[in-house]
Amino acid sequence: MNVVTSRRELASLVFENKKQGKSIGFVPTMGYLHEGHLTLAKAAREQNDLVVMSIFVNPLQFGPGEDFESYPRDTERDTALAESAGVDCLFIPSVEEMYPNPLSLDIKVIERVDVLCGKKRPGHFDGVAAVLIKLFNLVMPNRAYFGLKDAQQVAVIHGIVDDLFFPIEIVEIPTVREEDGLAKSSRNVRLSEKERKDASELYQALKKAQEAVAEGEKSTAKIEELVKSHISMSTNGKIDYVEIYAYPSLKPIDFFDIRGKAIIAIAVQFEKARLIDNLILNMDF
Amino acid sequence: MNVVTSRRELASLVFENKKQGKSIGFVPTMGYLHEGHLTLAKAAREQNDLVVMSIFVNPLQFGPGEDFESYPRDTERDTALAESAGVDCLFIPSVEEMYPNPLSLDIKVIERVDVLCGKKRPGHFDGVAAVLIKLFNLVMPNRAYFGLKDAQQVAVIHGIVDDLFFPIEIVEIPTVREEDGLAKSSRNVRLSEKERKDASELYQALKKAQEAVAEGEKSTAKIEELVKSHISMSTNGKIDYVEIYAYPSLKPIDFFDIRGKAIIAIAVQFEKARLIDNLILNMDF
Repeated sequence: MNVVTSRRELASLVFENKKQGKSIGFVPTMGYLHEGHLTLAKAAREQNDLVVMSIFVNPLQFGPGEDFESYPRDTERDTALAESAGVDCLFIPSVEEMYPNPLSLDIKVIERVDVLCGKKRPGHFDGVAAVLIKLFNLVMPNRAYFGLKDAQQVAVIHGIVDDLFFPIEIVEIPTVREEDGLAKSSRNVRLSEKERKDASELYQALKKAQEAVAEGEKSTAKIEELVKSHISMSTNGKIDYVEIYAYPSLKPIDFFDIRGKAIIAIAVQFEKARLIDNLILNMDF
Repeated sequence: MNVVTSRRELASLVFENKKQGKSIGFVPTMGYLHEGHLTLAKAAREQNDLVVMSIFVNPLQFGPGEDFESYPRDTERDTALAESAGVDCLFIPSVEEMYPNPLSLDIKVIERVDVLCGKKRPGHFDGVAAVLIKLFNLVMPNRAYFGLKDAQQVAVIHGIVDDLFFPIEIVEIPTVREEDGLAKSSRNVRLSEKERKDASELYQALKKAQEAVAEGEKSTAKIEELVKSHISMSTNGKIDYVEIYAYPSLKPIDFFDIRGKAIIAIAVQFEKARLIDNLILNMDF
């Protein structure tokens, strides 16, 4: 595995592989890798000749008071894990390397952002867009891999790629879960023992909702209530939101009578960690 | 020469050529081709295996009251001219093809725009940036060609490419002029006979400034005055601006004592056409 820190090294590696007609799969991450990331890398490994992973804690996507400084980092462990997952090239740039100058462009994401987490994180997806446009131009992947755990991010990225005509296939990978159902996340390490145990109830609440919809419940308001009350009764977490939208448009729906997909998404604040999860329901059954 | 109107056709042509390791030179235009454009195409022809030209009158870069509707168009003539200049692929998309959806991103250029023409055309370079990002992603050129006649545009494009890490070399081509010095432009056809004759004085004014600087004049204010009075005395055009900046930063300078380059740029409004011109002075003599 090549570990590169400069754009120049990365570009020359990409150029060599492109010249040989090799396909490139790209897994952008903020590091502190867990099984979720490795699942993305393994999918990229299966579908491409060259797998590039980036590790970059992107300051632009953290708001004031958010956890940029305290976001967990462990490059040595990440490097071993990336290699074990079949990554060919690990790109670990500095902030200076990714932002050598103040951007001469101001990029704002204006669709699909004023819902879910985006509503409380103004500017977050602007930072995601800026860094992904840069990374896409550096890595020039045929396919880029994203986990559906952050489904809003995936929806926004579809918008960026479609609207700017990036010749990249966005591959959506289902959320990887612990045995008890908790969605894997770098932030889970910040849960207390009790919180960690309770946190599995987030997934149970989503499954309960899924079952109720399968059994014929049409009202999204009732399903939201069902999820909220389950979480309130079984955890000490503070519910930030429980929301239901058409997916991936993230347009509001009142009833589960649409064709296509719907997303039930939740965010719950524990003492030192805010957890998100979602289920995407295929309404074509 | 291939003439294509759909993104799909263009992408497949680009893909085939990339697969064969061919280099791509790209000449984006708004059509109504003149020798300036053809000079760009010929330079691209010399330096690349495949030459792609686009013709697209981009509505996003016209402000309210600007000449989007009346901008001259002549596809048949353009096609013949492009072929004669050695273009391999002429991409002529519809507005619908370039903007199939409202953009989910709002892109604003925030550097180098509040001077020269940009000052009076808020949003103009935002439209330029949006369409170029799309076109760069479709054409994936090794090199893109721009005329220095619109030097501010070239400066802004350097910013876009550098900041977003597009792997594209921006090739600057000197302004192509009529025999009497008038910079070639699609808009010249709108000049009256007298205006057309007077318009050559714009270049004479710039040359006069260049000579004065070469002879030791250091004050940019005095040079601006010199240019203004020459234009006022020899044309009926209304001077929009005569400005001097460091190039390509477009930062203000008071004296010609910098190292690097300086630009003297002018814009003059005639009855039905607003003409721009500039000279870039190398200050290292």
